[in-house]
Amino acid sequence: MSKTNSGNFFEDFQLGQVIVHATPRTVTVGDVALYTALYGGRFAVQSSDAFAQAIGYPRSPVDDLLVFHIVFGKTVPDISLNAVANLGYADCRFLVPVYPGDTLSSTSEVIGHKENSNGQTGVVYVRSRGFNQHGDAVLEYVRWVMVRKRDPKSPAPAEVTPQLPRALAPDQLGDACPVIDPRKYDLALAGSPFRWGDYLPGEKIDHVDGMTVEEAEHQLATRLYQNTAKVHFNQFTEGQGRFGRRLIYGGHVISLARSLSFNGLANAFHIAAINGGRHVSPLFAGLTVFAWTEVLERAEIQGRDDVGALRLRTIATKDQPCAAHPAKQGDGYDPSVILDLDYWALVPR
Amino acid sequence: MSKTNSGNFFEDFQLGQVIVHATPRTVTVGDVALYTALYGGRFAVQSSDAFAQAIGYPRSPVDDLLVFHIVFGKTVPDISLNAVANLGYADCRFLVPVYPGDTLSSTSEVIGHKENSNGQTGVVYVRSRGFNQHGDAVLEYVRWVMVRKRDPKSPAPAEVTPQLPRALAPDQLGDACPVIDPRKYDLALAGSPFRWGDYLPGEKIDHVDGMTVEEAEHQLATRLYQNTAKVHFNQFTEGQGRFGRRLIYGGHVISLARSLSFNGLANAFHIAAINGGRHVSPLFAGLTVFAWTEVLERAEIQGRDDVGALRLRTIATKDQPCAAHPAKQGDGYDPSVILDLDYWALVPR
Amino acid sequence: MSKTNSGNFFEDFQLGQVIVHATPRTVTVGDVALYTALYGGRFAVQSSDAFAQAIGYPRSPVDDLLVFHIVFGKTVPDISLNAVANLGYADCRFLVPVYPGDTLSSTSEVIGHKENSNGQTGVVYVRSRGFNQHGDAVLEYVRWVMVRKRDPKSPAPAEVTPQLPRALAPDQLGDACPVIDPRKYDLALAGSPFRWGDYLPGEKIDHVDGMTVEEAEHQLATRLYQNTAKVHFNQFTEGQGRFGRRLIYGGHVISLARSLSFNGLANAFHIAAINGGRHVSPLFAGLTVFAWTEVLERAEIQGRDDVGALRLRTIATKDQPCAAHPAKQGDGYDPSVILDLDYWALVPR
Repeated sequence: MSKTNSGNFFEDFQLGQVIVHATPRTVTVGDVALYTALYGGRFAVQSSDAFAQAIGYPRSPVDDLLVFHIVFGKTVPDISLNAVANLGYADCRFLVPVYPGDTLSSTSEVIGHKENSNGQTGVVYVRSRGFNQHGDAVLEYVRWVMVRKRDPKSPAPAEVTPQLPRALAPDQLGDACPVIDPRKYDLALAGSPFRWGDYLPGEKIDHVDGMTVEEAEHQLATRLYQNTAKVHFNQFTEGQGRFGRRLIYGGHVISLARSLSFNGLANAFHIAAINGGRHVSPLFAGLTVFAWTEVLERAEIQGRDDVGALRLRTIATKDQPCAAHPAKQGDGYDPSVILDLDYWALVPR
Repeated sequence: MSKTNSGNFFEDFQLGQVIVHATPRTVTVGDVALYTALYGGRFAVQSSDAFAQAIGYPRSPVDDLLVFHIVFGKTVPDISLNAVANLGYADCRFLVPVYPGDTLSSTSEVIGHKENSNGQTGVVYVRSRGFNQHGDAVLEYVRWVMVRKRDPKSPAPAEVTPQLPRALAPDQLGDACPVIDPRKYDLALAGSPFRWGDYLPGEKIDHVDGMTVEEAEHQLATRLYQNTAKVHFNQFTEGQGRFGRRLIYGGHVISLARSLSFNGLANAFHIAAINGGRHVSPLFAGLTVFAWTEVLERAEIQGRDDVGALRLRTIATKDQPCAAHPAKQGDGYDPSVILDLDYWALVPR
Repeated sequence: MSKTNSGNFFEDFQLGQVIVHATPRTVTVGDVALYTALYGGRFAVQSSDAFAQAIGYPRSPVDDLLVFHIVFGKTVPDISLNAVANLGYADCRFLVPVYPGDTLSSTSEVIGHKENSNGQTGVVYVRSRGFNQHGDAVLEYVRWVMVRKRDPKSPAPAEVTPQLPRALAPDQLGDACPVIDPRKYDLALAGSPFRWGDYLPGEKIDHVDGMTVEEAEHQLATRLYQNTAKVHFNQFTEGQGRFGRRLIYGGHVISLARSLSFNGLANAFHIAAINGGRHVSPLFAGLTVFAWTEVLERAEIQGRDDVGALRLRTIATKDQPCAAHPAKQGDGYDPSVILDLDYWALVPR
């Protein structure tokens, strides 16, 4: 029996199977500092213990996407080591705040599978969950990936495709955000005068700034998340592959877009849910990421008058400023688009 | 009203106006570790809690320049987003030590303005202050920048140019340094046998070593400081600009020069004040930074026999070793010079 | 007397001399996070406080190699600033676990010297020791380096060559590993089902994955260790030198190889000793590191039934996958080999 992990193939995934992923991880202020250095985030709640405490947190929570990346990274050796493509995310909810000192671990439950007609690959659906050291689920999401079969001759399993919501309902949001005191939320320190009620559905915001990505940066980030996907790290092999170079982890793009979105969404301090995400095309080092956002919906959260929810669609591009809001184009996308992300953020009322 | 910040233009600055800058920041041991990785600092007081405690600090203070960069970074979106040039610093004093766990915020007071004769730009003078979570000012400095006018036809304001000292007086120094026990200051552990009395005005010290800067490094640093100046991050735009490439944040050069200066100034453990600083020419990735220092003055600090002050002038160069002490040349500078920094450092007696 | 350190030359080293190295260093969770970002380590004991506590540690210990690099870095300004070559390590033992918050310092004792027949250089042997803030030795190792003479005419000292063990004996291992409860060591969370008894002498494990190194990464790492060796940082000078570029710190290669070895050795959670190490050829940025390991011995540790020791030989290569186990070739090595490391690791029984 080989001592090395060769990952799971399509026929290894059994419906209902729960995979416990390796390497629990204690998140620290060291990780938080690196996350700041990698993306330059300026959301006050995550940046300042004093600010967070003033509104009702015990201290600054760990950035939602850092939690997502750490939970996600653990799933890679078991779920997507033999993946051809990471097809999408849905039904992602943040359930409990994470603070420095918490230890995260993850599991994935196989909730669907469907062999492709070529008989070489199939799509696997998993619901992954992140837990803290108390066993509380802090995050859950569904992901589906196209995975190679080990043996093309192995029989196709019964097709099971999970029903996934197009978007979380507003009353499913807010679990990872304690009740805050919105009067203590200092707009000057937060960097924007706009509260929840100031945003209107249909509004489009160009985030203006651009950020160029270096190989060292995305590699540092992806290792920080203990994400082992080979395509991000190995120029020797990738240099002989389809693109001739290393691919940047899609989550790195999400974090860059989120950080750029501060300029226009400074008070959207918490990502409560990700309704869906698509990595439209790959990003490579040396390119510059831009982003813009459309407000899709504005919703109250039942029982809460401290914060409201905005459903946002953030588009990120490469080497294309976003004043013209590039997005869909005919049947596809503007060729500059790399990310199409639909999520709920919370904003003080 | 736009949701995005387009920064202030010359005519937006009102004399006496105090601007509260966004995004307070809790400084942690994570930031300290990154700062070490970025510059390789070896000053024992900042590196070792045990060393700092032995001489009288409660623990290692956060490096003075890390404090400066964090306080400075916050001012960028309000003061210098539309700046043509960062013209100078003066009258900078470190007032209270900063420790991991402290939260920093900043304000800037407009203390002068002067429209340029071209009617397109003007010079704005601000006194910026950094505060900790108790409201104590930990740092203050004056900066002046050349800023674009929004509307060239707007009337010129009355010219007000603040009087700035050429250098801080010795009795204004030392507030951010507790009284230390110089007998407990271990010269072997600190890396140099030279105390305050061993330095002589006029002495010139070549710091010998050189450090090459990579794009990923200065971007990580500048984001760590939450400094959003566009020229440091956006190759897409800068590639079409004057230099064809990203400019490196001037503060990155100051920190590199300070770190290199350890070789010759190992016991100059605390920067008490910056009398003036000038970024003589820009630095780009791929170039190697060298530095040398002249001792300008040696001064006692009234009422203290634990530490004395050295007024130092550190010159940094690019791709030019400093054995020959390159500096002024005719009316200008040797073309290799990138930084001319005049500051006071404290050294055990 | 020059204020700058020009390092020691061959004739400066006196047999029996003990050198106290500069700059003690408090290791923090910030350093741990950076170490994760640099190498992507996934050993559960070092990654998760909860995992470490479950088996008997008070919290996650600092990675053994991070301790090694910090202790080693301090020795550079005194031992190897004028080194022509770093010839080898031996007799390295980890003696006490290091936790975040501990402060490390180091000393080196000169235990041998031998002038080379060319009269220009000599070999110096030192035993370096790392200490924590309580004065406990946490690590010791022997290193020998070839150092230039200041004056080729100075007389050769009496030749003294220390006797060094080819390998540590099993009963010398384990001091830095508390007694653990191997039943609480969760194999699923740790990432491998293989315990000590599952490894057999002679077994060869290809670690499969490759990691490409960027200039920014090895510079960040080497500065984090406060290692000042000029060849790693100064492209201006190295560009005119033998290789035309910066050399990567050999310890960076060791850490990369160790991190890659997780895939196959996930439960070899602690390096107890390094029997010997050789940097067979230099590594440069842009190249991809691969690794494979041979199990040399399997040994019980006297008085302990919780963990056993594996003596491992890990070979790292550049731009050469390791399925064919490249190593010695005729009198030398396969040209792809950059590291040949012989060490003892502990594995739960």
